[in-house]
Amino acid sequence: MKILVTGGAGFIGSTLVDRLLERGDQVSAVDNFSTRRREFLAGALKHSGFRLAEADLLTGEIPAGLMQGCDLVVHLSANADVRFGTERPARDFEQNTTVTFRVLEAMRKNGVKRIAFSSTGSVYGEPSVFPTPEDAPFPVQTSLYGASKVACESLIQAYCEGFGFQGYIFRFVSILGERYTHGHVCDFYKKLRADPSRLRVLGDGRQRKSYLYVQDCVSAMLCALDHALDRVNIFNLGTDEHCEVNDSVRWICERLGARPALEYSGGKRGWVGDSPFIFLDCSKIRAMGWRPTLTIREGIEKTLDYLVKNPFVMERD
Amino acid sequence: MKILVTGGAGFIGSTLVDRLLERGDQVSAVDNFSTRRREFLAGALKHSGFRLAEADLLTGEIPAGLMQGCDLVVHLSANADVRFGTERPARDFEQNTTVTFRVLEAMRKNGVKRIAFSSTGSVYGEPSVFPTPEDAPFPVQTSLYGASKVACESLIQAYCEGFGFQGYIFRFVSILGERYTHGHVCDFYKKLRADPSRLRVLGDGRQRKSYLYVQDCVSAMLCALDHALDRVNIFNLGTDEHCEVNDSVRWICERLGARPALEYSGGKRGWVGDSPFIFLDCSKIRAMGWRPTLTIREGIEKTLDYLVKNPFVMERD
Repeated sequence: MKILVTGGAGFIGSTLVDRLLERGDQVSAVDNFSTRRREFLAGALKHSGFRLAEADLLTGEIPAGLMQGCDLVVHLSANADVRFGTERPARDFEQNTTVTFRVLEAMRKNGVKRIAFSSTGSVYGEPSVFPTPEDAPFPVQTSLYGASKVACESLIQAYCEGFGFQGYIFRFVSILGERYTHGHVCDFYKKLRADPSRLRVLGDGRQRKSYLYVQDCVSAMLCALDHALDRVNIFNLGTDEHCEVNDSVRWICERLGARPALEYSGGKRGWVGDSPFIFLDCSKIRAMGWRPTLTIREGIEKTLDYLVKNPFVMERD
Repeated sequence: MKILVTGGAGFIGSTLVDRLLERGDQVSAVDNFSTRRREFLAGALKHSGFRLAEADLLTGEIPAGLMQGCDLVVHLSANADVRFGTERPARDFEQNTTVTFRVLEAMRKNGVKRIAFSSTGSVYGEPSVFPTPEDAPFPVQTSLYGASKVACESLIQAYCEGFGFQGYIFRFVSILGERYTHGHVCDFYKKLRADPSRLRVLGDGRQRKSYLYVQDCVSAMLCALDHALDRVNIFNLGTDEHCEVNDSVRWICERLGARPALEYSGGKRGWVGDSPFIFLDCSKIRAMGWRPTLTIREGIEKTLDYLVKNPFVMERD
């Protein structure tokens, strides 16, 4: 297959690129390198089946030739950080919603009709049903990030109905593992490296969250792409467990041999729009034969080990 | 109250403007007059409490002074026709989603925090539950129009959570009545006026649809604004009945004394993305004390009488 990955130099994108090349696909990646590291594509760039283009999907065009003749676009390019929506509302809107519209239009103009998309469990807002299934009650959005992803999902669905596209929408929990560049494991590790005697935790530490190891995430995406045949295929991707922020803090401290005094910012939520409980019902993707290989704790520890060995990931601004 | 109505020269907008002025509010309207008739505001323009500005909300700014000090923005400006999404996908995205983002940003910058919004029953796609309640299962979009409105709803919800806005989201069935300028009653009337011997009907005529009279729609919006107190208030607005397209055709023909031969384009849907069954559960707004005054048949007949008496409405392109 000929596959184009947007955001292909990112954490999940570069991991997917490597996996696709391994299994023999022809892979193109487009990225603006705004937050990504070229190092992640070092392996892919040695591969004859790989092409890379630098482009800003908000203002520029996807280079001719990358889209033409593609069997599939995996659209991962996005502002991927849920926390700072209220500081810069235009960022989620432009980088996620507008860019997705532009990608869909480019596909339509080039006759490419199959798209896979990285959505988020944040689209459920603060759900009333746990574990939360794909057809949970019509949610109310609580973050600019979630709102932007719902808009992307909706656009993709409308293109499926209106233009005969086939869509794969993956609602991720927080993904972690090798090449992880932002999120709570990074934050806690950075803080503990600077001052191992104390650790400030956002919220009351009782928020319940779900995490999935990046290789398991990519395996799930490939499993769905191989086996799901509907026009619109929506899958929650996560493990069948959740943990408290306090659990995560304890595992990280134990792994690093740190014993900091914990200071909580307080409240049920870590930030405006933070969901105090994220736990997705992943029975639909499991029914396709997929299983995660790592528990949440193992995923967190693997991420931490990677960060310790690869300090370059956290050196950029 | 000081209220700004976007799309205030439109069908629903101008009706709302008149009702707000009647009850003593200070009302500003902004409109680009792309599809609207100045005639609709003839009454309002005689009122000392009314201000009107012409502006394109996609490319321009809301004139300073209109937004400042507002208690409420009623954002009705939109591409309101669900049918032509696949012909011009950018129109729904820009006129609905992008404009709504720009209105929210203008509100935020001016410290205005209360918004009412005209959404649509089309956000339910092809629902699995009838009558469809506000918390129906997370829908899959089937039209560019529905997708754009979901994006708007989601943005408004995120601004409510992130910036302390209060939001009123109204999911309309098809609205009709005086000042109605597009939709099936217009289409059938135009066709029958041109050739009363035959009438072409999109789909198989068995599509089940819901309609609401515009004055009942405005009453419901005002009822919710007066009585609903949540941060995010979502209301289906419709009657507790539905009709077949064939019923509607029969009522229109009887009212006009026409006996055309009917020709069906065939299929369950009138166009790509058409929902074959729209029937909303309106018990939530009814619990606030609102009741519609006209049945669907009465609303259709009133619309037809208006069109017959006001041919100018259909004279534009």
